[in-house]
Amino acid sequence: MPNLPRAAMDPDSRAAVPRFDDLLAARARIAPFVRRTPVLHDPELDRLLGLQLFMKCENLQIGGAFKLRGATHAALLIAASGHQGRLLTQSSGNHGAALALACRRLGLALTVVVPRTAPRSKIEAMRREGAELVFCEPDQASRDAAVEAVRAEGDVAYVHPFDDSWVIAGQASATLEWLEEVPKLEVILVPVSGGGLASGTALAAHAHDPKIEVFGVEPSAAADARASLAAGSIQRGLVGPTLCDALRAELGPLTFRILSAHLAEVLVVEDDEVLAAMRFACERLKLVLEPSGAAALAALLKARHRFRGRCVGVMLSGGNADPETLALALQAPVPALP
Amino acid sequence: MPNLPRAAMDPDSRAAVPRFDDLLAARARIAPFVRRTPVLHDPELDRLLGLQLFMKCENLQIGGAFKLRGATHAALLIAASGHQGRLLTQSSGNHGAALALACRRLGLALTVVVPRTAPRSKIEAMRREGAELVFCEPDQASRDAAVEAVRAEGDVAYVHPFDDSWVIAGQASATLEWLEEVPKLEVILVPVSGGGLASGTALAAHAHDPKIEVFGVEPSAAADARASLAAGSIQRGLVGPTLCDALRAELGPLTFRILSAHLAEVLVVEDDEVLAAMRFACERLKLVLEPSGAAALAALLKARHRFRGRCVGVMLSGGNADPETLALALQAPVPALP
Repeated sequence: MPNLPRAAMDPDSRAAVPRFDDLLAARARIAPFVRRTPVLHDPELDRLLGLQLFMKCENLQIGGAFKLRGATHAALLIAASGHQGRLLTQSSGNHGAALALACRRLGLALTVVVPRTAPRSKIEAMRREGAELVFCEPDQASRDAAVEAVRAEGDVAYVHPFDDSWVIAGQASATLEWLEEVPKLEVILVPVSGGGLASGTALAAHAHDPKIEVFGVEPSAAADARASLAAGSIQRGLVGPTLCDALRAELGPLTFRILSAHLAEVLVVEDDEVLAAMRFACERLKLVLEPSGAAALAALLKARHRFRGRCVGVMLSGGNADPETLALALQAPVPALP
Repeated sequence: MPNLPRAAMDPDSRAAVPRFDDLLAARARIAPFVRRTPVLHDPELDRLLGLQLFMKCENLQIGGAFKLRGATHAALLIAASGHQGRLLTQSSGNHGAALALACRRLGLALTVVVPRTAPRSKIEAMRREGAELVFCEPDQASRDAAVEAVRAEGDVAYVHPFDDSWVIAGQASATLEWLEEVPKLEVILVPVSGGGLASGTALAAHAHDPKIEVFGVEPSAAADARASLAAGSIQRGLVGPTLCDALRAELGPLTFRILSAHLAEVLVVEDDEVLAAMRFACERLKLVLEPSGAAALAALLKARHRFRGRCVGVMLSGGNADPETLALALQAPVPALP
C-alpha cells in the first residue's frame, strides 16, 4: 500500500485540476502495477509521411488499454483512504475491465454498470476479473439510474470513469513516460471520449512544454467534445452510432474545464477512416488496435499534410477489438501513402 | 560506413561459427539501422500459464521481421569490403525484403530470386524497396538454378539467407538485447527454418549462460531440422505444405553444425496450433504475427506444462501476415487457459 497521500485525505481534490506534482505522484504510485509501454518509431514511415511520428502503444498496456493507469490510481487511493465496502463504476468496457483487474489485485470488490450493447470481448474481460455486472440501456439516463440504484444499496465508493482528478492523474502517466523518451514532441494527437485520457495527456504535455499542441480526436458521429469546446459549454445528446464504442461518452465538468484550457483543436474522423487505420496498424505496425484506439492514427493519416516536418505523437489508446471488427478492418481499403 | 572489420577481410570467416566478439561487433555495427524491439511481459498471463514468459517482439522490427538484422550486417560488410556490383539473394520474402531495405539505405543494387508462391505482401515489400525480382518454382533445385543464372551474369555478391556467419551474427543481436533486459532466462523457444535466427539465438544465449535451454520450433510439415539433428546429418526433401511459409528452408552446413551443438531439442507444432497462437496474439497480446512468427508461441502454449515454474523466452520472429491469413486465424478456436 502506498503512503497515504494528500489526495486521499481531501475528497474535494477529486474535483480539482491535478497539479504537476499530483501527476508525478500518481506515476510513482501505479508504477508497480502498470506496464511502461513502448513508443514505436519507424524512420521509413517518417519518410513516407513527411514528418516524425512517435506512437505510444497503450494497446500493449496490461488489459489492452490505457485505462489500467487511472483505474489503478483511483483504486489505490480509495483503499488508502480506509474505505471498506465495494467499489462501483460505469463503463462500456475498458475502464470497467481495468478497474476490475486493479480491484482483484488489491483485494477489493467491484460492481460495474454496463450498457447491454458493450462489446462481448470487454464484457468477458470484466467477468474474468470477477467484477459483478449490472446491465443497462446504452444511454446516459439509464446508466445514471443504474448507478444510483447500486449506490442506494449502501457503502460503495464510486469511481467515475474519467471526470475524477485521481483518474486523470493516473492517465497522465502514459504521457510522462512518452515525453521522457521523446522530449522533442511538438504535436500530440489523442482520442477524446469523456476526456480523462485527453486531460491527463494535455496536463502532462503542457507541464513539460506549454508550446506542445495537443489535438483531441473524435469520430464524427460522436463529435460532442468538438461542439462543447466551440460552444463554451458541455453539449449533450450529440452522440450517434459509431464503431468507436469507447469514444461515445460526453465530457464532464472537470474534463471540460481542462480541455477548454489545453486543447488546440478537436479533429474529426469517419468510421471508414478508422477501419483503414486499423488495417494500416495490422499491416504496417503489426499492432492490433480497436476502433477507438485507432482514431488518433486515422486523424494523423488524414491530416498528415498539416503536420508536415513536425514531430508528432499519436496515442494508440487501446487494442481490445472483437475478432469480427478486426476482420472487417482487414477488408478496408489500404490508406495510400504518401 | 563502419570501420573495416576483420570479417570483411577474410572471406573464409563467412563459413565459420561466429565468436562472441563477432556477435558484439555485429550488434554495434547494425545498431543505427535496426530497432531495439520491446520485450513483452504480462504478469497476469504468467499467472494463467504457471511460468514467467518474456516475448521478444521481432514482429515489431522495421520491416516486420528479425531479418533486417542479419541482412543489414551482411550488406554493411560487403559494402565495407569494396564490392562495387549488385548483391544477390534468394528468399520467400522476409529476408529479401530486409536485404532490399538494407541495400536501398546503403545505395546498393539487389536482385532477389523468389519462389512464385511467396506471399503477396512479401513480394510487394521487396518491390517497394526497389529490388529486382527473379521468380522461380518453389523448390530448392529451381531456386539454385535461378541463382546460378544471375551469378553467371557477372559481378554479384551473394548473401545467403541464413548459412552465413555474417548473417547469423546479425540475427544474434536480438538475443543480446533480450538477455540484457531479462538476464535470468532459463529456456528460449525460437523457430527454425534454415537456422540463421536459431543459430544466432543459441550462440548469444550460450555466451551469456551455457545452461540456457534453447528449443527450436518447426511445423510438423517441415520438421527437417528435427530429423537432421536426430540423424546427425542434414536431411532433405522432408518439407511439405504448411501455413508457415517462412519455415520451409532446410539447414545449411554452418547452421547444422551450430544447432547440433546448441539446441536442446526441436519441438513440433501443427498449422491449427499456429493459427490459434496467432489469434491468441491478436486478442491477448494485441500483436499481429505471421504463421512462422507465431510458431514458438504455439509451441509454448502446447508444451506449457513442461516449462512450469521456469523463466521462458519466446521469440515472436515476424508479423508479415497477409490479411487473408490473419482473417483465417481470427476464426481459429481460442486456446483454453490455463
